[in-house]
Amino acid sequence: MAGFNVHSILVTGANRGIGFELVKQFLERSNPPEKIFATCRNPDGAQELKNLASRHPNLVIVQLEVTDPVSIKAAAARVEGLLKGSGLNLLINNAGIVKTTTLEAETPEYMSQAFLPLLKKAVQESAQKGLSCSKAAIINMSSEAGSIKNVLAWEFGQAVSYRCSKAALNMLTKCQSLAYRELGILCIALHPGWLQTTMGNTSDYQAPMTVDEGVRGIMNTLAKLSEKETGAFINWEGNLLPW
Amino acid sequence: MAGFNVHSILVTGANRGIGFELVKQFLERSNPPEKIFATCRNPDGAQELKNLASRHPNLVIVQLEVTDPVSIKAAAARVEGLLKGSGLNLLINNAGIVKTTTLEAETPEYMSQAFLPLLKKAVQESAQKGLSCSKAAIINMSSEAGSIKNVLAWEFGQAVSYRCSKAALNMLTKCQSLAYRELGILCIALHPGWLQTTMGNTSDYQAPMTVDEGVRGIMNTLAKLSEKETGAFINWEGNLLPW
Repeated sequence: MAGFNVHSILVTGANRGIGFELVKQFLERSNPPEKIFATCRNPDGAQELKNLASRHPNLVIVQLEVTDPVSIKAAAARVEGLLKGSGLNLLINNAGIVKTTTLEAETPEYMSQAFLPLLKKAVQESAQKGLSCSKAAIINMSSEAGSIKNVLAWEFGQAVSYRCSKAALNMLTKCQSLAYRELGILCIALHPGWLQTTMGNTSDYQAPMTVDEGVRGIMNTLAKLSEKETGAFINWEGNLLPW
Repeated sequence: MAGFNVHSILVTGANRGIGFELVKQFLERSNPPEKIFATCRNPDGAQELKNLASRHPNLVIVQLEVTDPVSIKAAAARVEGLLKGSGLNLLINNAGIVKTTTLEAETPEYMSQAFLPLLKKAVQESAQKGLSCSKAAIINMSSEAGSIKNVLAWEFGQAVSYRCSKAALNMLTKCQSLAYRELGILCIALHPGWLQTTMGNTSDYQAPMTVDEGVRGIMNTLAKLSEKETGAFINWEGNLLPW
């Protein structure tokens, strides 16, 4: 991870689970980002995030309701102000949408559009060739359950709406990679693994991997991503998954 | 097509384009279905369909707004009544949804659920082994533009929402095939080809194939489908497309 140097990062749904752990592990790095924007719907209730922020001045909690375009715009404006003219390297669309009446791809699409000017600025500031998370990247949290080819774990739960939403999100990621490649922005659909989060542990099954372990894998993988992977669907270990 | 013998069929969005042509070509067969239900939002305005119905007593026009669950239920009840205890062999979810705020997969999902009892009845009535359109089938009209692997014709138009919706619909089809295989129902995501319909012909391009030609291909392909293809994404010629 020697060359992995992210100046600024935004993680949605950062009050718990994978989002919170990503923030924590970015803060623990030997070269942590200068700005970490951790968004959640209700910052007042995000006690763990607030505890972290009290010890880490580079962590800023930003109120954001990802299903609300007005809230997204307000958050983008606030982040732009806090970056004081700098760009945003890494946008992690992690917040999950459970409303089955909403196309899950819409939220990351709108998030990416709202934060595009800051991602472009990060590209301009970077001397790096090619694509990388240190330069500018959009990571969309997908799921292996969204693989149409595999339809894995059908016997555990059919979750048809969830699967359809993740397939749509994978398509969005592919389209973003085509639209943003020339701009210098890496785009990835990432399956984080089945982790022991509130969502991952069901009443019937316990997820096989701790959040800590899964997010360590994700961090290693983010560090290695390049233009070779843009537009791909990969897991926490960086292995390619079928659409 | 010798063995292709469909007693009853329902086509949504049948007032024009591919839906209308499917109805027309089913009526023209040497062994036409005993009942063809052609649904559209506004039967009063469907003049071509009304002309056809005046000459073909086996054609019934059914009012249906596919985005409205209440309308779907009412249509299913009416069709059940008209079938007088018989089942429905073939459900063709053809009506397109343009609203980008709605997950396109929802409508065919709800349609299929509402008509499932009639499809199951058709299975019970059939002496055939395996799966076929003559027995019981759900055909979801997809598009090659929904192939995440290919993202074809990106240069013609990015159409991101449309692509995401079709990727979601392809996932729905795969899930339906897994859920309904044991019930004896074939499920297919079908790319009809780029046809010279109102939707297919844009201001910049003319579609390469006539509706007549494309639907002839679709009819041939429907006749040949078996359990080998259930859950697949195929084009009007029956060729497999990548997810």
